[in-house]
Amino acid sequence: MVPEDSIALATRLADAARAVVMKYYRTAVAIDDKADSSPVTIADREAEQAMRALIEAAHPNHGIVGEELGAVRADADYVWVLDPVDGTKAFITGKPLFGILIALLHRGRPVVGIIDHPALGERFLGVAGRPTFYNGKPARTRACPSLEKAWLYATSPEMFRAGPEADAFQRLKKRVKHPVYGAECYAYGLLAAGFVDLVVEATMKPMDYCALVPVVEGAGGVITDWQGAALGLGSSGQVIAAGDAKLHAAARAVLAG
Amino acid sequence: MVPEDSIALATRLADAARAVVMKYYRTAVAIDDKADSSPVTIADREAEQAMRALIEAAHPNHGIVGEELGAVRADADYVWVLDPVDGTKAFITGKPLFGILIALLHRGRPVVGIIDHPALGERFLGVAGRPTFYNGKPARTRACPSLEKAWLYATSPEMFRAGPEADAFQRLKKRVKHPVYGAECYAYGLLAAGFVDLVVEATMKPMDYCALVPVVEGAGGVITDWQGAALGLGSSGQVIAAGDAKLHAAARAVLAG
Repeated sequence: MVPEDSIALATRLADAARAVVMKYYRTAVAIDDKADSSPVTIADREAEQAMRALIEAAHPNHGIVGEELGAVRADADYVWVLDPVDGTKAFITGKPLFGILIALLHRGRPVVGIIDHPALGERFLGVAGRPTFYNGKPARTRACPSLEKAWLYATSPEMFRAGPEADAFQRLKKRVKHPVYGAECYAYGLLAAGFVDLVVEATMKPMDYCALVPVVEGAGGVITDWQGAALGLGSSGQVIAAGDAKLHAAARAVLAG
Repeated sequence: MVPEDSIALATRLADAARAVVMKYYRTAVAIDDKADSSPVTIADREAEQAMRALIEAAHPNHGIVGEELGAVRADADYVWVLDPVDGTKAFITGKPLFGILIALLHRGRPVVGIIDHPALGERFLGVAGRPTFYNGKPARTRACPSLEKAWLYATSPEMFRAGPEADAFQRLKKRVKHPVYGAECYAYGLLAAGFVDLVVEATMKPMDYCALVPVVEGAGGVITDWQGAALGLGSSGQVIAAGDAKLHAAARAVLAG
């Protein structure tokens, strides 16, 4: 159940947010600290505002959950989940891998996802039941059933909470071919396009992961929480994505210990 | 003592290497493991070969030290130090931040440096005693005298050897505003362009750091080893670059413990 007009709207949201974000990219924007001491700028807030205005105008009955400006009608059948700048630290330091994340959930399940990279001019569009598109061309994950051959991305080995979570990542890291860090949400696009095999992260918010689901699934990959459950608004924030279902199962087994 | 024709040659090397690298970027290239288990591809070898041929043709008396194909005449007055693909893991996984690093050393001192990013179409050119250029425009570091306000980049917190080296990085990391990972050599360009304040790395080879010196210095920054000594072929591989000389001193003091 993915209404065509909502797919078109998702694209318009990305266009609108991209225009705002690029207006501020690599300029001397003021940086505020949020309650969790993560940074935020006017680009985040203004881009989210622009997207929310478009949603309110087109579908005043849809819900919205935004990274910066909170939730309205979060119990609606259709809920938009927005991160205007995912990878804010990358954005602030002029590193072009940050992205705009846009998801549409239908009864809790992500059915449309956009990962847009304004500074790179790249966009991934995923729609439930359809092939994922990367800059207008179909994207496919690659086969890689074995951990020993897998390239693994995570934003940072320091994103895992000390204790069982960090220990699980360390176990997995030792089993793969190469762990690589610092691609932000771009890592999931690289996975969808068949350049990397595995992305494992934690302490993620719904705004960070909902948009990834249709993109990864539509490219032939598997993305769930570390227990293998579907991702939605109430997930734990532990995310595992693999281009190959066998690799997904093998990696989950290692994480489980 | 920077001969004009050598600056022009450095640019031609970058153009030649860029053409080779982009021919292989995001294609299914075979990946070999080097003795240190780091990956290498035909793109590395062919790009270095192309640069070496241009140097041999123009200056058969110049020395060459290359990441993949070894050293010739390393005791010459002028020595080229080449890394055809810095950030090979980024290159292999389709992450566009990898770079081509080209340095010309005069009696051991880096006097020309190029950081070229083929997939981004971006280039930094540094020449001793002259302003650094970023895509043809002058680049300047920004003022940031205090650790507490500094944005710090490193490729990975795991690049430091366990023991005093890793401990020193952990001490520093706790003192800065935000540590960020995974920009590869792009971090030094971001520093030269005034978007980040500090880059601290270790286990670097001369091919990894020589090209950075003229770029960072020509933009107003300071780059040395962790003890504050000038970087050359025989350095320890511990590198610290800061946009502000006061920050460089403060960070070095924390690293020294």
